[in-house]
Amino acid sequence: MSSMETDVQVALDKFYADVADYDLQPLWTQTRNLMPSHPKPEALPWLWSWERLRALAARAGELITVERGGERRVLGLANPGLHGLPYATPTLWGAVQYLNAHESAPAHRHSPGAIRFVLHGEGVWTTVNGDACDMRAGDLILTPSWTWHDHCNGSDHPMIWFDGLDLPTIIALDAVFFQEYEDMNQPVTKPHNTSTRIYGGHGTLPLGTTAHQLHSPLLVYRWPDTDEALTGLLEANGGVAASLEFVNPTNGRAVMPTMGCEMHRIVAGGETRPYRKVGSSIFVVYQGSGYSVINGLRFNWGQGDMFVAPSWAVVEHHAQEQTDLFAVTDKPILEALGLFRDEYLLQPQEISSVFAAR
Amino acid sequence: MSSMETDVQVALDKFYADVADYDLQPLWTQTRNLMPSHPKPEALPWLWSWERLRALAARAGELITVERGGERRVLGLANPGLHGLPYATPTLWGAVQYLNAHESAPAHRHSPGAIRFVLHGEGVWTTVNGDACDMRAGDLILTPSWTWHDHCNGSDHPMIWFDGLDLPTIIALDAVFFQEYEDMNQPVTKPHNTSTRIYGGHGTLPLGTTAHQLHSPLLVYRWPDTDEALTGLLEANGGVAASLEFVNPTNGRAVMPTMGCEMHRIVAGGETRPYRKVGSSIFVVYQGSGYSVINGLRFNWGQGDMFVAPSWAVVEHHAQEQTDLFAVTDKPILEALGLFRDEYLLQPQEISSVFAAR
Amino acid sequence: MSSMETDVQVALDKFYADVADYDLQPLWTQTRNLMPSHPKPEALPWLWSWERLRALAARAGELITVERGGERRVLGLANPGLHGLPYATPTLWGAVQYLNAHESAPAHRHSPGAIRFVLHGEGVWTTVNGDACDMRAGDLILTPSWTWHDHCNGSDHPMIWFDGLDLPTIIALDAVFFQEYEDMNQPVTKPHNTSTRIYGGHGTLPLGTTAHQLHSPLLVYRWPDTDEALTGLLEANGGVAASLEFVNPTNGRAVMPTMGCEMHRIVAGGETRPYRKVGSSIFVVYQGSGYSVINGLRFNWGQGDMFVAPSWAVVEHHAQEQTDLFAVTDKPILEALGLFRDEYLLQPQEISSVFAAR
Amino acid sequence: MSSMETDVQVALDKFYADVADYDLQPLWTQTRNLMPSHPKPEALPWLWSWERLRALAARAGELITVERGGERRVLGLANPGLHGLPYATPTLWGAVQYLNAHESAPAHRHSPGAIRFVLHGEGVWTTVNGDACDMRAGDLILTPSWTWHDHCNGSDHPMIWFDGLDLPTIIALDAVFFQEYEDMNQPVTKPHNTSTRIYGGHGTLPLGTTAHQLHSPLLVYRWPDTDEALTGLLEANGGVAASLEFVNPTNGRAVMPTMGCEMHRIVAGGETRPYRKVGSSIFVVYQGSGYSVINGLRFNWGQGDMFVAPSWAVVEHHAQEQTDLFAVTDKPILEALGLFRDEYLLQPQEISSVFAAR
Repeated sequence: MSSMETDVQVALDKFYADVADYDLQPLWTQTRNLMPSHPKPEALPWLWSWERLRALAARAGELITVERGGERRVLGLANPGLHGLPYATPTLWGAVQYLNAHESAPAHRHSPGAIRFVLHGEGVWTTVNGDACDMRAGDLILTPSWTWHDHCNGSDHPMIWFDGLDLPTIIALDAVFFQEYEDMNQPVTKPHNTSTRIYGGHGTLPLGTTAHQLHSPLLVYRWPDTDEALTGLLEANGGVAASLEFVNPTNGRAVMPTMGCEMHRIVAGGETRPYRKVGSSIFVVYQGSGYSVINGLRFNWGQGDMFVAPSWAVVEHHAQEQTDLFAVTDKPILEALGLFRDEYLLQPQEISSVFAAR
Repeated sequence: MSSMETDVQVALDKFYADVADYDLQPLWTQTRNLMPSHPKPEALPWLWSWERLRALAARAGELITVERGGERRVLGLANPGLHGLPYATPTLWGAVQYLNAHESAPAHRHSPGAIRFVLHGEGVWTTVNGDACDMRAGDLILTPSWTWHDHCNGSDHPMIWFDGLDLPTIIALDAVFFQEYEDMNQPVTKPHNTSTRIYGGHGTLPLGTTAHQLHSPLLVYRWPDTDEALTGLLEANGGVAASLEFVNPTNGRAVMPTMGCEMHRIVAGGETRPYRKVGSSIFVVYQGSGYSVINGLRFNWGQGDMFVAPSWAVVEHHAQEQTDLFAVTDKPILEALGLFRDEYLLQPQEISSVFAAR
Repeated sequence: MSSMETDVQVALDKFYADVADYDLQPLWTQTRNLMPSHPKPEALPWLWSWERLRALAARAGELITVERGGERRVLGLANPGLHGLPYATPTLWGAVQYLNAHESAPAHRHSPGAIRFVLHGEGVWTTVNGDACDMRAGDLILTPSWTWHDHCNGSDHPMIWFDGLDLPTIIALDAVFFQEYEDMNQPVTKPHNTSTRIYGGHGTLPLGTTAHQLHSPLLVYRWPDTDEALTGLLEANGGVAASLEFVNPTNGRAVMPTMGCEMHRIVAGGETRPYRKVGSSIFVVYQGSGYSVINGLRFNWGQGDMFVAPSWAVVEHHAQEQTDLFAVTDKPILEALGLFRDEYLLQPQEISSVFAAR
Repeated sequence: MSSMETDVQVALDKFYADVADYDLQPLWTQTRNLMPSHPKPEALPWLWSWERLRALAARAGELITVERGGERRVLGLANPGLHGLPYATPTLWGAVQYLNAHESAPAHRHSPGAIRFVLHGEGVWTTVNGDACDMRAGDLILTPSWTWHDHCNGSDHPMIWFDGLDLPTIIALDAVFFQEYEDMNQPVTKPHNTSTRIYGGHGTLPLGTTAHQLHSPLLVYRWPDTDEALTGLLEANGGVAASLEFVNPTNGRAVMPTMGCEMHRIVAGGETRPYRKVGSSIFVVYQGSGYSVINGLRFNWGQGDMFVAPSWAVVEHHAQEQTDLFAVTDKPILEALGLFRDEYLLQPQEISSVFAAR
């Protein structure tokens, strides 16, 4: 190295040191990492089996009490690509929650919003601002941002369900507020399932409903209604699959500004076209069996299994039995911020490797 | 009169003559008429009885054929305050339509939008852009602006229903377009009632539905659903009356930008608070009996009767039997233009006179 | 006529009489009139010359005092096709208003909204809810629905301007409210032209401005700004004409939900493509000269002349000198109700007749 | 420890190990950390001085060339609380960019949006989709999401400005797309500053502008306009401070869905009330001097200094000279997601410690 080269190198070294010392960073050394040509998520496609989730949740039911402070007996899906963060994807928290017979989880509220999707059984109700919402298999229950909520198991058997939260995003935005209710549980102040009586109409709303509420005032979406809607959609489109979105009936938009909830029915033997979109999804197999191919990895699944697709991953589903796949996504965020893109790929992906569900 | 006064008068007379001659009009002579302190509609509160409407419609069924050109066997409610115009109110067309057994009305489309509310029977379907919508008692059927539509009676008996149109407003705006379909009837291109399969979910929509469609893509609102929603609302509010609005499920707004559709249930013995709003309504008694007091005039009604309330008229309803009152209004127009106002009056109005339903 | 024919005729006559007697009207006898294939306005294309308007307004200034009750010295354009109604078009009121030196018009408010477009001079201010808006040639001033407003001439000479109101529509909707201010004039409670200080920024708004206000909170649009915007638009599009809309800066929409305000600049020798739209317009020639062809009728115009184009009329403008045409329209109504349509015609219309401006 | 206690502990240890091994995490052990009672940002309040930034940027100008790959000579503010991430706050990238005389930075586009705020000088233009936007002191220039952009210095002296990007959020959402333009620079296809000619009106827009564009089509906000708007706001509110937001003229909303841009003028000796909001801000001192107190820490500042306020930090500003503080925030995201909250505190905070600007 010539002395001139050496001088330049010395000056550069000094410059980079001074920059770092003043809490600055050059862009030019990391442009490509910060701005890849397309999303390169660290989150991995991953699957958790229902058998294992249920067994671990049941062990938690024996070993762990539900108390103020810990608040919930919840096991969170921790994507192995996310460096130990307790998130299913960079934007979504996914988990199983477990309540023993005649047990309840204390009332609180928080700025993150949550959805509950019931996989099995009945007997629990979630009270949301005084409205007790009965939870039965296939139901979707909302606990929107900053609503008081607790869960009570009034039955003689344990109950387990899926929890989805926008928590990672709310943390990333430094926007988490949390408050304990003054008592362990809030009173039920209305007849059970009042929101469905008020907002659960079939193309009707109470006269004078304020339009454009950001969070859905309808708190429960019943499985029989969902089943009927899927049947109708399949009849109408005449295809092998039908996809619906759960919506806020006051504006036809996603149930929350931060999370979208979807249900996908695929008939036995049916498959979906390879598809990718900006934003991630957690899928929960409500019923049926089959496999999905995500970025070339195959995930076999059956009832109760949960799996995640990262942003921009190519996803295709294959149903062996007729299947209903519930999904929670971050799509409303991406649409609100003008960042949503999606596309169908022409050919089914080659499956370059096989990832057997554990 | 002095000569000066005479001169002034002559000058004024000449002035007013010159103004009129140049197609001008002074404001100052008519300010109070043009701008009253509150709305002073020329339309009268009025009632048409079902018995008479049905009888006249049946006679039309014998005497009049449904043909291209006349297009429909429809008798329009002609408010006696409106100087011979065939309008129920200044903004709303109301009518009974009558189809004989195995008769059909030719396909056409027009920029005015229409709603159909079925009072009795079944057997007719209205085809809207290829989607045949079965019409049964209590159902609301939409034929939105510029959609092809025809009515076919596939049954062995005549059928009659209520038609509501925004026609007077569209005429006032010089915005009427009309087109005959190339054949007498359009083909049914989908399974009957396809819109309900696609958009008739209970808090769900097809994934990817375009938000904010100006006209509802859901074309039929079934009576059993409406009945269930009214029952739920009454349970939730614990009162003597419940009011719902039929909405566009893609945005939670009125079914059309020009007309709102409502259903009001009042329990036996119940009454509503005196209320007035800007804009007019046509009420159709779907079931029940009772009376309404409109600007102090009492109108007794029973099943099938139709009556109108002009803008800013004080209205209260009294149900003798449990009653379901369907209403079509111009409220979406007034809200869109920033002109809607309403108020509840504290005390039931004194009934200063009695207008016995004819 | 056979006896059977006679019997039928008798039955029909009796039927039509009974129908009329019960305040009903058959549709089938008037379908084509009520529903023409395209709008067939009764309003005529018409022109009023500035010379005549000014002369008559000046005579009114000598003969008529401005008093409570009459409220304003205003001469309204009365379209000769509208059967004596004092309307420029079925939806728009257009007029000239005249104030003598040091005269004022009393304060009131009404649900119809108004715009003022200044043709000549200065010295008057319109006070809107306490904000005195100075009026100068080329300025557009708003007095939105239900705002207190009065006009004061603080100068030593008379002043005259154009008034546009949505009055016909508000009357058609039975939605007129009117209230006199308790005193003859309201106090000016803020520095003159406060609305321009708050909302008159160039791409800026006060931090925290509530979005989506139905009426523009900006009350004055100054001619120098309008002139500059027209110049910029012409530079950018490189054409012979440029058209801008005055907008509510809080939402980018029309200044009022019932009226749109536009300015069209056409360079000397330039002409616009034949164009028609649903809805009517009043044009006011701010400066320049030329002629317009409306449905084949030619109207020559110069500074201050006013003319109207009915709904669906084909309009083309030809500028002899560089021209600025102000227009007020009912377009926001038609768009809100889903009724707006427009189209450019390929070829300039043949001028089938000539209507010389009077 | 009893043997039973030991057994339980063994079972628990085994349970937690099994949970971790299956890529799950218990919630109950980390509820309080994940859900604090209010936002507890890791980002620190911090200040970077203009003198140091300019000196380091100038050294970069000597040592570093601007090339394809590195793309820009930019030094990013790296908040010392963010563990080495090159972000000013968790949602905002802030930086200084430096171009030597007659140098240009290559054309590219990316899904993150950017704003440029000019501190000194002139002579550079940023071309955005073919529209060259001249950059002068006090101007705000937008390069919205996915617009081609490059920067060209046409002058004989270096130029430096502030860059703000939503990059951290777009990375967190796995939504970054990036593309190089095929050539080093894109052609300028229109007269310079065309967007201001089209969308830069004062309450006017081109007739027919599509409402509700997510990103502002106006790309430049000129300092003289901003200065005039601040002067007007101060006159109108009669206070010691005025705050405006730069808006998208087609909808009155933030210039981008992901970033808000504000300008705050404080008169000499004026101070603002202690205030906190959800979401973070980068402040850039355009002119003036004074200090801010953020969560009790005092930051002295003068022209060109940049400082950040984390989410929910209490901020008050004190101006010694008349000051114009530019700010870029993440507020539009928080509002769109229903997460925005703010409050004014009653009393100025006690300054518990002093942090002297370095």
